[in-house]
Amino acid sequence: MRWRRRTPVTRGFQWDVRPWATSSSMRSCATTQRIPTGSIAIGSCCLLVMRYNPKNPYWFNRDRFVLSAGHGCMLHYALLHLAGYDSVKEEDLKAFRQWESKTPGHPENFETPGIEVTTGPLGQGIANAVGLALAEKHLAARFNKPDAEIIDHYTYVILGDGCQMEGVSNEACSLAGHWGLGKLIAFYDDNHISIDGDTEIAFTEDVNARFEALGWHTIWVKNGNNGYDEIRAAIEEAKSVKDKPTLIKVTTTIGYGSPNKANSYSVHGSALGAKEVEATRQNLGWPFEPFHVPEDVKSHWSRHISDGAALETEWNVKFGEYEKKYNEDGTILKGLISGDLPSGWEKALPVYTPESPADATRNLSQQCLNALAKVLPGLIGGSADLASSNMTLLKMYGNFQKDSPQERNLRFGVREHGMGSICNGIALHSPGLIPYCATFFVFTDYMRASIRLAALSQARVIYVMTHDSIGLGEDGPTHQPIEHLMSFRMMPNILMLRPADGNETAGAYKVAVLNRKRPSILALSRQKLPQLEGTSIEGVERGGYTISDNSCNNRPDIVLIGTGSELEIAAKAADELRKAGKAVRVISLVSWELFEEQSPEYKESVLPKAVTARISIEAGSTFGWEKYLGTEGIAIGIDRFGASAPAGKIYKEFGLTAEKVITASHSLFK
Amino acid sequence: MRWRRRTPVTRGFQWDVRPWATSSSMRSCATTQRIPTGSIAIGSCCLLVMRYNPKNPYWFNRDRFVLSAGHGCMLHYALLHLAGYDSVKEEDLKAFRQWESKTPGHPENFETPGIEVTTGPLGQGIANAVGLALAEKHLAARFNKPDAEIIDHYTYVILGDGCQMEGVSNEACSLAGHWGLGKLIAFYDDNHISIDGDTEIAFTEDVNARFEALGWHTIWVKNGNNGYDEIRAAIEEAKSVKDKPTLIKVTTTIGYGSPNKANSYSVHGSALGAKEVEATRQNLGWPFEPFHVPEDVKSHWSRHISDGAALETEWNVKFGEYEKKYNEDGTILKGLISGDLPSGWEKALPVYTPESPADATRNLSQQCLNALAKVLPGLIGGSADLASSNMTLLKMYGNFQKDSPQERNLRFGVREHGMGSICNGIALHSPGLIPYCATFFVFTDYMRASIRLAALSQARVIYVMTHDSIGLGEDGPTHQPIEHLMSFRMMPNILMLRPADGNETAGAYKVAVLNRKRPSILALSRQKLPQLEGTSIEGVERGGYTISDNSCNNRPDIVLIGTGSELEIAAKAADELRKAGKAVRVISLVSWELFEEQSPEYKESVLPKAVTARISIEAGSTFGWEKYLGTEGIAIGIDRFGASAPAGKIYKEFGLTAEKVITASHSLFK
Repeated sequence: MRWRRRTPVTRGFQWDVRPWATSSSMRSCATTQRIPTGSIAIGSCCLLVMRYNPKNPYWFNRDRFVLSAGHGCMLHYALLHLAGYDSVKEEDLKAFRQWESKTPGHPENFETPGIEVTTGPLGQGIANAVGLALAEKHLAARFNKPDAEIIDHYTYVILGDGCQMEGVSNEACSLAGHWGLGKLIAFYDDNHISIDGDTEIAFTEDVNARFEALGWHTIWVKNGNNGYDEIRAAIEEAKSVKDKPTLIKVTTTIGYGSPNKANSYSVHGSALGAKEVEATRQNLGWPFEPFHVPEDVKSHWSRHISDGAALETEWNVKFGEYEKKYNEDGTILKGLISGDLPSGWEKALPVYTPESPADATRNLSQQCLNALAKVLPGLIGGSADLASSNMTLLKMYGNFQKDSPQERNLRFGVREHGMGSICNGIALHSPGLIPYCATFFVFTDYMRASIRLAALSQARVIYVMTHDSIGLGEDGPTHQPIEHLMSFRMMPNILMLRPADGNETAGAYKVAVLNRKRPSILALSRQKLPQLEGTSIEGVERGGYTISDNSCNNRPDIVLIGTGSELEIAAKAADELRKAGKAVRVISLVSWELFEEQSPEYKESVLPKAVTARISIEAGSTFGWEKYLGTEGIAIGIDRFGASAPAGKIYKEFGLTAEKVITASHSLFK
Repeated sequence: MRWRRRTPVTRGFQWDVRPWATSSSMRSCATTQRIPTGSIAIGSCCLLVMRYNPKNPYWFNRDRFVLSAGHGCMLHYALLHLAGYDSVKEEDLKAFRQWESKTPGHPENFETPGIEVTTGPLGQGIANAVGLALAEKHLAARFNKPDAEIIDHYTYVILGDGCQMEGVSNEACSLAGHWGLGKLIAFYDDNHISIDGDTEIAFTEDVNARFEALGWHTIWVKNGNNGYDEIRAAIEEAKSVKDKPTLIKVTTTIGYGSPNKANSYSVHGSALGAKEVEATRQNLGWPFEPFHVPEDVKSHWSRHISDGAALETEWNVKFGEYEKKYNEDGTILKGLISGDLPSGWEKALPVYTPESPADATRNLSQQCLNALAKVLPGLIGGSADLASSNMTLLKMYGNFQKDSPQERNLRFGVREHGMGSICNGIALHSPGLIPYCATFFVFTDYMRASIRLAALSQARVIYVMTHDSIGLGEDGPTHQPIEHLMSFRMMPNILMLRPADGNETAGAYKVAVLNRKRPSILALSRQKLPQLEGTSIEGVERGGYTISDNSCNNRPDIVLIGTGSELEIAAKAADELRKAGKAVRVISLVSWELFEEQSPEYKESVLPKAVTARISIEAGSTFGWEKYLGTEGIAIGIDRFGASAPAGKIYKEFGLTAEKVITASHSLFK
């Protein structure tokens, strides 16, 4: 099999589409390479119409482009290369899908400047694009002035049949229609072919009719293979419809240009082969060497370098004037663009004492969110139809809606997955935007693909996950998380935080805001919890810390480790054991990841190796606790599904009680 | 707050809807109770029209009913009670949401006979219903004869706004339309209210238009509160449309009957309160005591007991005749109804020797599937548009399609979540149906909510999850699972199996088929693996076992533990270490759950406590390996996201090599 690569080129104003090259040196890459040929014309039109500065991929007011059908990333890399981005040079193209290259097998925003979001898992890109368009609409509404339209860009996205089939795209597109995101322009590359063959075998719905039902404007370009004029006209039409997003269905032929393999599924999942590449090159009249870009093509695309520089310069001047005239807004917007946090923001976090009233951490979370919203202009978010349960409303703001896009409460409806992916888009739109989103903790299962992508793509999303254990009670096992805490503790580049009270909730928010390159999940209780002695924001920042200890010389008789709602139980058991003359240390292990990042000395000071009598208590899976309990410790937790009953009853039946901790302790005393 | 309960009743043919009762003894249940009042008329119509036998909830040819809006389960419990099901007696109603009651906070098929599937997580029920309707269509096509329509039932489902917003429902409904599931009748309770208030804040799409686009027949009943005649007429119309599923949008008023709270979101999430319940009772003219069912109502509903018994008797006679006339099909169908496996089925599993050619376990899996399909008539399944990558095609069968429903290859399109939920429905339709479904292992993230529900609801679904590690290579980190293996090992009631070669793959299938009450996930390699010495089906059945050992007296110098594709690396390292004179045991830990279920003696015989020099190697998160490695062992794995490069390169860069195992071993030798 031969390596196959295609890219769009242009001769003056006469468009053409031709395969670029074969390269025998790249054979090894061929087997899983999939380039949606039909998208070439669409992608070329986008990148030629769009406003951006190739020499500064981060220019704030750039149009955004998302290849939701991320498996066709070579198309995007080739376009970036032609457009003059320094991130994708010829040698990068040649290193396609190789170790540490700038051109990995799917588009990754953290590897390649010019790539806005990480796509590949289908449906994510279009949902991210909804988030990008939402961010634009929101910021424009907040910051533009009658005499200064400082934020004003489009979001373009290409999605394929696969993206259309995924539920997450329907969720996000329903919201895009509801919100009237008029500057979102989505191209549906309708090539009838997916990996398993003709889409007729599984996908016969009327896509444009569905989008009309979702409140979108729709257009159908019937000749997408080389109907450049029609595609450009469709873009113009889409721009003219300001109150609705637009779906442009573009019917294309997969493998267009290949005389023997066009319109077959074999073009989707594997390479053409040397012979067919040659035939295609002949068929399209493309005589050039692999990777050669003819001069006329080069010069046509190179105008983006000068045009883009001019665009940014012009905007910078405009922004300078804006700052002068609208001093306060200018300062705020500058912070959102740079990502710098207002100094002293963390002082807004509430502080609690053991005398403060007991409260559910979901309520304490709302206090934090409302306190932070005043000092963090980028904080924006909401819940998947559980705002009054997740306690996520920002009371001083209204709802972000079609006609009130300046507001900061997002209403996602019952669309967890779409919510997560939209938040990824918001986070990656502006360094200073801090999206948060909420549902019951168990329903992270619905949005796990988007959470993982936040972690991978270094998007600072804050997940406000309430009802975090059997403590939610009567709703029963479908609503009670068991394995979820642990399952996120092992996910790379994400912080799993389970605060125990007010101070720890405040600490969790501090950590979440400060971690610019990783998302944070806050697991919060539905039930009331006391404000504990010894908890602190600083403790949370270290992940694990001692909240009480009556031992000497770092040698307690036993260490009790709790998290979240069970830290109270550990503290109670410790009180009893101390009355009985024991030296007991209680540790809050609010974030395993942060604790692991501490120095060996600090860790030893909290969890001395010599003390092997250790008990953990946590209303979740005991799997993994061996890490901190060693071979002798005892994990008290839940290794079955939950049950429907009042929370107190379940805690008792499942043995999550101070009595159980005390009994277990006695079995460990030497 | 007072406990509130409503149920539909009927007086002769004059329908009415009235709140049943308040019960001060149940106050504690009130806060999170949510009953979609508007659904009462719909639910009553369904349960009165449906064909079932209350005294045998498992009668095979019953109509199926699913309350996808599972939070309104009291409606379903009350209907089951009225219809004469023994599973829901008055005392069960009174024990609503209490410990070990038959009436938990959401419908749970494993708790309450008469409940078909477990719902509550929104969107699942409608997708399950698609699976139930698929199973009916498939079995009818396979077993019905011109003179014997032995399988012939409808599937009814009620879904609310929440279900409609979830992406999984769009995925499943797109397939239902594609497959032309004419006997699926879905009621959309359009009450405009969800937890966060009026659906106007997040849900303004045209639902019926969307369903038309998905290929459904749609009806709109505008007065759903008491438009019983219209609802019944709609059901008749739906039945007359045989080539499409039908969505009946029924516009209702939430809290209908409550003079002050109807049509408000406060009725969704919390109870009416004693005063308003009283006002509602007066408004509706309902003078009876709590839980009292008036005689005329009782007698009207009780006909289901006699009618249902007669229906089943009639069907049994018919089935008797069928068995006589169509001996072979009768025997097969009987097995599908009982769930009994054909004797000796497991002999069909392929057996391999170390001389058998190296192969990817995904290919070996296909050999197993194709071998089993011949002997297991209930095996049916497919992939989410990756059949040729997951290797899931049953070669002797065609595609299940609208006009070929007797076939056994399901084509799910790129709809992982819908696929999972549909498979739950298939598994719970017939004890003998064994659905399998497939995608890349990393994309279990897309369908995790449905996998968890399979585990909870004891649905035997087999998940064929290929491309199970960085071994997939170039597609990169978005496609490479890291934390997934561990995250499923800690999920209750599911088996996570990671076979290393042909024999282990066969063993994994044997285990998966035999575990009737729990689902199994098979993690399979994309890359070729050798057939190892010492692997066996029997070993897999024990979860963990020794594949090679040159030690004496159960005291090796070191134990190397591998799973799946890394068992080969462990074996290679052992060879080298043995050459150097070491006594080395190699253990395959193919399923942690099965290993944990073995006797302490067996576990000790495999992993002797005295041998603390232990190394694990697995291309995934090392989190959790402490369980088997103790405090001294070394886990070789991956605690970061993957990378895009050829697989061999990534293995080397990540240190997953025999050399690394050998080096680590030397650090452990005393």
